[in-house]
Amino acid sequence: MSAAPSQADPASKAAVLAEALPYLRRYSGQTVLVKYGGHAMGNGDNGDPFARDIVLLKQVGINPIVVHGGGPQIGQMLQRLGIKSSFIDGLRVTDGETMEVVEMVLAGTINKQLVAAINAAGGCAIGLSGKDGGLIRARKLTRNGSDLGFVGEPERIEDRVLATFRQSDIIPVIAPIGVGADGATYNINADTVAGAVAAAVKARRFLLLTDVAGVLDGEKRLIPELTAAEARRLIAQGTISGGMIPKVETCLAAVDGGVEAAVIVDGRVPHAILLELFTEGAGTLIRGG
Amino acid sequence: MSAAPSQADPASKAAVLAEALPYLRRYSGQTVLVKYGGHAMGNGDNGDPFARDIVLLKQVGINPIVVHGGGPQIGQMLQRLGIKSSFIDGLRVTDGETMEVVEMVLAGTINKQLVAAINAAGGCAIGLSGKDGGLIRARKLTRNGSDLGFVGEPERIEDRVLATFRQSDIIPVIAPIGVGADGATYNINADTVAGAVAAAVKARRFLLLTDVAGVLDGEKRLIPELTAAEARRLIAQGTISGGMIPKVETCLAAVDGGVEAAVIVDGRVPHAILLELFTEGAGTLIRGG
Amino acid sequence: MSAAPSQADPASKAAVLAEALPYLRRYSGQTVLVKYGGHAMGNGDNGDPFARDIVLLKQVGINPIVVHGGGPQIGQMLQRLGIKSSFIDGLRVTDGETMEVVEMVLAGTINKQLVAAINAAGGCAIGLSGKDGGLIRARKLTRNGSDLGFVGEPERIEDRVLATFRQSDIIPVIAPIGVGADGATYNINADTVAGAVAAAVKARRFLLLTDVAGVLDGEKRLIPELTAAEARRLIAQGTISGGMIPKVETCLAAVDGGVEAAVIVDGRVPHAILLELFTEGAGTLIRGG
Amino acid sequence: MSAAPSQADPASKAAVLAEALPYLRRYSGQTVLVKYGGHAMGNGDNGDPFARDIVLLKQVGINPIVVHGGGPQIGQMLQRLGIKSSFIDGLRVTDGETMEVVEMVLAGTINKQLVAAINAAGGCAIGLSGKDGGLIRARKLTRNGSDLGFVGEPERIEDRVLATFRQSDIIPVIAPIGVGADGATYNINADTVAGAVAAAVKARRFLLLTDVAGVLDGEKRLIPELTAAEARRLIAQGTISGGMIPKVETCLAAVDGGVEAAVIVDGRVPHAILLELFTEGAGTLIRGG
Amino acid sequence: MSAAPSQADPASKAAVLAEALPYLRRYSGQTVLVKYGGHAMGNGDNGDPFARDIVLLKQVGINPIVVHGGGPQIGQMLQRLGIKSSFIDGLRVTDGETMEVVEMVLAGTINKQLVAAINAAGGCAIGLSGKDGGLIRARKLTRNGSDLGFVGEPERIEDRVLATFRQSDIIPVIAPIGVGADGATYNINADTVAGAVAAAVKARRFLLLTDVAGVLDGEKRLIPELTAAEARRLIAQGTISGGMIPKVETCLAAVDGGVEAAVIVDGRVPHAILLELFTEGAGTLIRGG
Amino acid sequence: MSAAPSQADPASKAAVLAEALPYLRRYSGQTVLVKYGGHAMGNGDNGDPFARDIVLLKQVGINPIVVHGGGPQIGQMLQRLGIKSSFIDGLRVTDGETMEVVEMVLAGTINKQLVAAINAAGGCAIGLSGKDGGLIRARKLTRNGSDLGFVGEPERIEDRVLATFRQSDIIPVIAPIGVGADGATYNINADTVAGAVAAAVKARRFLLLTDVAGVLDGEKRLIPELTAAEARRLIAQGTISGGMIPKVETCLAAVDGGVEAAVIVDGRVPHAILLELFTEGAGTLIRGG
Repeated sequence: MSAAPSQADPASKAAVLAEALPYLRRYSGQTVLVKYGGHAMGNGDNGDPFARDIVLLKQVGINPIVVHGGGPQIGQMLQRLGIKSSFIDGLRVTDGETMEVVEMVLAGTINKQLVAAINAAGGCAIGLSGKDGGLIRARKLTRNGSDLGFVGEPERIEDRVLATFRQSDIIPVIAPIGVGADGATYNINADTVAGAVAAAVKARRFLLLTDVAGVLDGEKRLIPELTAAEARRLIAQGTISGGMIPKVETCLAAVDGGVEAAVIVDGRVPHAILLELFTEGAGTLIRGG
Repeated sequence: MSAAPSQADPASKAAVLAEALPYLRRYSGQTVLVKYGGHAMGNGDNGDPFARDIVLLKQVGINPIVVHGGGPQIGQMLQRLGIKSSFIDGLRVTDGETMEVVEMVLAGTINKQLVAAINAAGGCAIGLSGKDGGLIRARKLTRNGSDLGFVGEPERIEDRVLATFRQSDIIPVIAPIGVGADGATYNINADTVAGAVAAAVKARRFLLLTDVAGVLDGEKRLIPELTAAEARRLIAQGTISGGMIPKVETCLAAVDGGVEAAVIVDGRVPHAILLELFTEGAGTLIRGG
Repeated sequence: MSAAPSQADPASKAAVLAEALPYLRRYSGQTVLVKYGGHAMGNGDNGDPFARDIVLLKQVGINPIVVHGGGPQIGQMLQRLGIKSSFIDGLRVTDGETMEVVEMVLAGTINKQLVAAINAAGGCAIGLSGKDGGLIRARKLTRNGSDLGFVGEPERIEDRVLATFRQSDIIPVIAPIGVGADGATYNINADTVAGAVAAAVKARRFLLLTDVAGVLDGEKRLIPELTAAEARRLIAQGTISGGMIPKVETCLAAVDGGVEAAVIVDGRVPHAILLELFTEGAGTLIRGG
Repeated sequence: MSAAPSQADPASKAAVLAEALPYLRRYSGQTVLVKYGGHAMGNGDNGDPFARDIVLLKQVGINPIVVHGGGPQIGQMLQRLGIKSSFIDGLRVTDGETMEVVEMVLAGTINKQLVAAINAAGGCAIGLSGKDGGLIRARKLTRNGSDLGFVGEPERIEDRVLATFRQSDIIPVIAPIGVGADGATYNINADTVAGAVAAAVKARRFLLLTDVAGVLDGEKRLIPELTAAEARRLIAQGTISGGMIPKVETCLAAVDGGVEAAVIVDGRVPHAILLELFTEGAGTLIRGG
Repeated sequence: MSAAPSQADPASKAAVLAEALPYLRRYSGQTVLVKYGGHAMGNGDNGDPFARDIVLLKQVGINPIVVHGGGPQIGQMLQRLGIKSSFIDGLRVTDGETMEVVEMVLAGTINKQLVAAINAAGGCAIGLSGKDGGLIRARKLTRNGSDLGFVGEPERIEDRVLATFRQSDIIPVIAPIGVGADGATYNINADTVAGAVAAAVKARRFLLLTDVAGVLDGEKRLIPELTAAEARRLIAQGTISGGMIPKVETCLAAVDGGVEAAVIVDGRVPHAILLELFTEGAGTLIRGG
Repeated sequence: MSAAPSQADPASKAAVLAEALPYLRRYSGQTVLVKYGGHAMGNGDNGDPFARDIVLLKQVGINPIVVHGGGPQIGQMLQRLGIKSSFIDGLRVTDGETMEVVEMVLAGTINKQLVAAINAAGGCAIGLSGKDGGLIRARKLTRNGSDLGFVGEPERIEDRVLATFRQSDIIPVIAPIGVGADGATYNINADTVAGAVAAAVKARRFLLLTDVAGVLDGEKRLIPELTAAEARRLIAQGTISGGMIPKVETCLAAVDGGVEAAVIVDGRVPHAILLELFTEGAGTLIRGG
C-alpha cells in the first residue's frame, strides 16, 4: 500500500494536507459512486492506480461503489462468435443471443477483472450484476418507436444489499445488467445505471470518470462548478453539445434524485478521484438548485 | 411461495410434522452447504423447485450456501468459439483462452441464472466467484506430472464475506473459480470447491446433490449412514468404486475438515434437500469417526 | 424429543414439508394462544402429546401461551370438603370458601401438573395465575341481576410479564384466576380468559381446543373458515347454536380485540395444533371483517 | 408507597442516611434471599410491611428473592379433609394424598397470597413452585432408615429462570416444592430450599427471618457476628442448641455454597430487612471462614 | 467511606429508612444541581462532609453537578497584586487585568481544591470552567447603563460535555467563567450560572446552598414550599426582601427553564443535601405553577 | 475550518494525498500524545495553527491528547507577587506559596487559554490538571539530597477519565500538576508528564514539540530515525548532549513504557504535526528495540 514518498517540499505538503483533511472528514461515512469506463480498465496487477484509489477511499472511512461499462470487450466477443449488431441512436440492438454475450462478458469477465484488481490492491470487492440481490429492476427501453430488443433502463434500484455492504469492508462493483419483472435480462447504459444507483443510495458524490477535462465554456475553458439550472441553460444555449449532453443529463438525473453533487472528471489524470474529493476539486461539479 | 396443499391425510401429515420440527430446530442458525450440478439447473422461472427449497431453508432460519458446476455449458461455448480441449484423467486441460471462456460461462452465465432463479423464488441470492472478496485462493494442480494449465485446487477459503452474509438474508451462490497468489485465474472442480467451503465455514451438513441414490452395498441396497472409517474401508474393499470414489473422497475431506456430516443425495428426487434435512434422511450420510 | 419416523412415503413427506415450511416462517416470532381444556390434561409423563407439541412450537421460534380450565377437578375437591354449589346459567355461584378451593385446585394442582408435563417434554414452562405479575385484573360479573359471588370477568390484562417471557425460552401457563381492584380473588371462565389474553398480546392465532370438529353448516359439514360477519350471521340464523355459541362469541371477541384469527379445533385429534398451524388448517377459522 | 414522615430530628435523620447510603450502594444490583415464615404471612392489603420492604428493595436496585413456608395452613387443610399425619424427627410423613394437599396449599393458596400482597404494595411478584422452570430438582430424603414418603431435599437448583427475572422488575416468590427425576412431587423444608437457592444464585445476603432475636451467647446476649468456624464451635460446645441448630446449619450450608453472609433476623421487628441491610446490622450474621 | 454508626434506636432508624428509600428511587438516574458557596469550601481532607455527600449521591445513582463561587479568595488575590476594584450594584467592575485574576483563582485554585476534596472522598470529579467544552457561552452584562467590563451573563449552556459525563462516574464541578462570541472571558455570578446549568440539563432539583434557613414568612417561620406564583407574590408584597430576592429570582428562573423544583437550603446544616433529598425536606422548595 | 487552497500543482497534490492516506488509516482510532511548549502558545483566535491541527486530527478519527508547560508565565506572576525562586539543576524549588501560584497559572490561565483556542478552532477541548479525575498521582522528587519542596514526579496515571473521553469528541488538554497520596499538590516537569501519560494510554505516537529540528549527528545533519538502543549509544558517546539529553530520555521512557514511537519535532514548522504523522516524517523518531 505504501507509495513512494512524494517529492514536494515540506511546506507544500503541509499545505496540501491542511487543505485535504477537512474534506476527508466531510466525506467520512459517506457514499461516493464512481462510474469507471470499460476502456480504462487496469490489468489487475498490484499497480492499478484506479483500484488503489478505491481501496484508499474505503480505508479512510468512505464507502465507494463502482459501476463499470464494457463496450469494446463486448464488441470483440460478438465478433468472435460471428454475431452482427445494428445500432439505433448509438444503442446496440440486443437480441437474445447478443444479450447472452453481453451478460457473459460484463458479469463474467470485466466485472471479475475489476474485482480482482481491487482485491489485489488490498480491498475486499464483490462483483454484482443487477440480478444479484435483485439489485436492478429494469424495463424495456424504446427509442422513437424502434424495438431495441433487450435494451433496458433502470426501473427500481433495490439497495438492501448495498446497505448490508455499507456496514462491512465490502466494496461493491456493479455490472450494468438489469432484470425485468418477467425475468428477462436487460442491457443498460452504464452511465445511466451509475446515476440511478447514486440516487438510490443518496450518494454524497457521483464521479463520472470520462476522457475529457469536464464541461468547457464558450472559450474552451473548464467550468469548475455549475448549478443544475445553469447546466440546463448551457444545454439549451448549445454551449454543452454532442457527447457531453448525455453525460450532463445523467448528472442532472442523479442530482434530481438526491445526490448532493455529480462531477464529470477526467479519468486519465492519475489519482483523479483523490484530487476531486480532497482538494478544491477537478473537473466540473454539478449541484442541485 | 404457497404450495398446493399436500394430499396426505391429516394423521400422516401430523406424523411428518412431529418428526420434522425437531430437525428443523436442530439446524436453526446452522450452515448447510449444497453442491448443485450444472446439468440440473432450472430455467429461472418461479417454478424452479431447487430454488424454492433453498429459499425455504433461509426463511426458516438455516443458512444455505450453494456451489454450482457447469460442465455442459462450458463445452458448448468452447465449441461455438472453435476452441478444442484435451482431457487428462477427466480434467479439461485449460489454457489461457479456455480459462477465459470457463470463467465467462461459469461466473457470467450459469451463476447469474441460478441467482435469478433463487431471487424469483423470493430469496436474496448473490453470486460469487472465487475472486469476489478473495473467496477462493487457488494453487495450480498437477496430475501425474502432466501440465493441466489453469486447473487449480483450493488452497485457502477466505470466509469473511460469507460471515457477513450469514448475519443477513443473503444467500451466496458460488462459481468454482479460484485466484492464485500470482493473480492468475484457475478452473477448479466444483465438488472440491463445495467440500472446501463446507469445511471452511464448519457447515453442519454438506449435501452433495448427484444423479444416483447414494452409496450402495454389495447387494445394491442403499447404505443410509457410514462413519468415515467405514467409508474408507468400503473404498479399500472395492465396494465403493468408479465415479462414486471421488464423491465419497470429497465427503471425507469435508468431514475431516470439520463438517459434522456430508450426505450424497439424489438430486433428481423432488425436494431432496427437505427430505434429507427434515426426515430421518435420504441418500448416504457420512460422519466423522 | 425424537419421534418414531413417520411411515409416509418420501414423496408424501416432501409434499407435507414443502407445504409446512412457509407456514412455519409466517408464524416465526409470533404469539399463539392455546386454550387447553381441563378434561384433556395429560398425566405429566414424557409421552404427553399436547405438552410435546407446545414445546415444539417454542423450539421452532413461535411463542405459545397456554390457558387452562379445570372444571372436573374443582368439583371433586369441593365434594371431598363437603361444600355444595349452585349454578346460574351454567356458572358456579362462588362464595368465599368455594373461591379458596377453586384457586387452590386451579393454581396449585392443575396448573403445576401442566407445567410439569411441558417441562418433562423439554420445555421451560412457568405457571401463572392472574395474581402473578398482576396479570388479570378482574371485576365482578353479574348475570341477570343474580349475585354469583366471586365470579368475575377480565377487566384488564397486564401483559408486561408476558412481554418479558417472550424474549426468553419461558412458556407461560395461565390459570383463570383474577384479582379485583379491592384485592378480592375471582373465578373466571377459562375460554374468556384465553380470548382476553390473546387479544391483549395481539396473538397471531387463538386456538380454542374443544371436543368437537368445529363449526358445522346446515348439512353437518365442517366450515373451514368464516369471517366475523359470517359467524354473526350464522348465530342469528340459528345455524350455530347451543354450546357452540359461547365458543364462537369468545373467538369473535378475540378477533375484535386484535387477534388475526381464532380457530375452534378438535383437541382430540393427535397433534391438532401442528395440523392447524402448519397445514392448510383443521377446525373452523374465524377472522376479522 | 409514601410513608408517614419519621419523627426523628433532622440531625438524627442525617446521621442515619449518611450511614445507610454506603450500604445501599454496596447491595446495588446484588441478590438478597429472604426466607419468610408461613406463620408471619400478611393479609394481602396495602399495609403489609413485609411486602412493602421487599418492594422497596427492588425499587432501589436490589434483587430480592422470597422463599416461604406454610406449616399451619397445610395442617388445617389436611384436618378438613380428614387426612391424618404422623411425624418423624419433626418431619411430616407425606404419602401421595398428603402431598397433593401440601402442593395445593403451598403453591395454590399461600404462594398466591404472598404474591398478591407484594403486588398490592406496588411490586411485580411472580409465584414459583419448584416445578416452574424446573427450578428445584429434588431427591427423596431418608432419615434414620425411616420412609418419609414424598419428603425430599434439593438436589439441584436450575436458576436460569431466576436469571431472566434478575434483568426485569419481577420479584420471584418460591414455594418449597420439588420435582424428582422420575417426575414425582416432593415436600421440602422451606429453610433448606431458601439456603439452597441462596447458594445457587450466589446471593450477597441470605436473611432467615425467624421469631427470635438471633444467636445468643452463654449470657443470653445477642451475638452480632460469627465466622462459620465459630458457629460450628458453638454448636459443638452446646452454646447453640435446640431449634437454633438447624437454623444455623442452614446458614452454614448457604455460606459454604457461596453466599457472602447469612443472617438470622427477628422477623417480628418492623422493617427488620431494612435494618439488617442498611444499618450496622440486626440479628446474628454468619460469614465464611 | 464508612461512617460511625448512628446513635438512633432501631425503630427510629427503620422509620427513617422506610421514609428515605422511596425518595431515593425517585431521584435515581436524575440530575441534581448543587450551588456551593465559596466561603463554605472544605480543606480537601477526607473529612470534608460536603464532598462526602456529593460522592454518596453519585454512588446511589444520582447525577450531581456542582457549581461554585469564590468571592473572598478573589478579593484576597487582587489585594496581593495591588489591583483595586469598584462595585456597582454589588457587582465587581472587571477590567482585563482583574478578569485574569478572577479566572486564575476560580478555575486554577478554588475549582481544583473542590475537585481534589471530592476525589479524596472517593469520587471522580472533573473541574470545568465555562471554556471547557464551550460549556458557558456568555454575553456582556450591562446594568443601568454602567459599563461593568468583563462581567457577563449566560447566553447559552452547551451541555454535550455534561451529557457525556452523565453516562460515566464523572462528577462535574463548574467555575462560573464564560466565554463570549468574540472569545473574551467573562466573570459571571455563580448563582446565575448554577440556575442556568440546572435549566439546561433539566435538573430534577436545584439546591441553592446558602447560610440562611430558607424563605421566612411574616412571623419569621420557615416556609417549606412555594409555587412560583406564590413566590412572586411574596416578593411583590415585600415579605421576601433584601438579599433573599436574587436567590428566589434565580430559583424562579431555573423553574421557568424546566427544573422541577429549586430549593433554598441552609448549607451550614451537616448533610443538608441528604436531608433535603431523602426526607420530607429542609429549606424552602419552589416549584412551577 | 476551510483553508486557502494550496498552490501546489494537481500532480504534486495527488502524490501527497496518495502518500498521506495510508498513514491516515494507520492512525485511525489511535491515540497521539502531543507535548506543546508554554512559550509557543497561540493567542486563542481562530488562526492558531496548532489548535487547528489538533482539531483536524480529532476530526479524521485520531485521538489527540495535549500536555502543556508554562515556564515563562509562571515566572512573571511570581515576580508580580514578589515571590523569589531558587533553582537546583534547572528545577524551581517550590515552597507552598510558590506552588499555589504555579497551579493557578498552569491550571487557571494557560490551560484555559489553550482549551479556548482549540474550541475556537472547532474542537471540544476540556482542560485537566492532575487533580481532575485523580489523573496524576505524584510523589516528591528529590535531587542529590536537596529538598525541592513541592516538585514531584508521576507515580501513577489514572487513565479512566481519558478512556471515557476517547469514546467521545472531547480533546483532553493537561496541565502538569500532580496530587500526592497525602493530598499535597506537586509541580511536575511537563515533558515528564507528557511521556508518562503517553505510556499510560499506550499512545501510538508521542510528539515532543520543541524548538530544534531534532537529533543531529556528528555532522549536524538531522537523524530521521533511531532505535532506543542507538539513542542510548549516542548519549553515551556524547553525540547527544546538553538540553537534548532529557528530551531523548523522556522519549526513551515513553517507548519503554509501551509507546510505539516517540518523535522530537520542530514545533516552529507550520503544521509540524501533520507532516510528522502523514508524510514520511519530520524530526527524529525513536522506536523500541
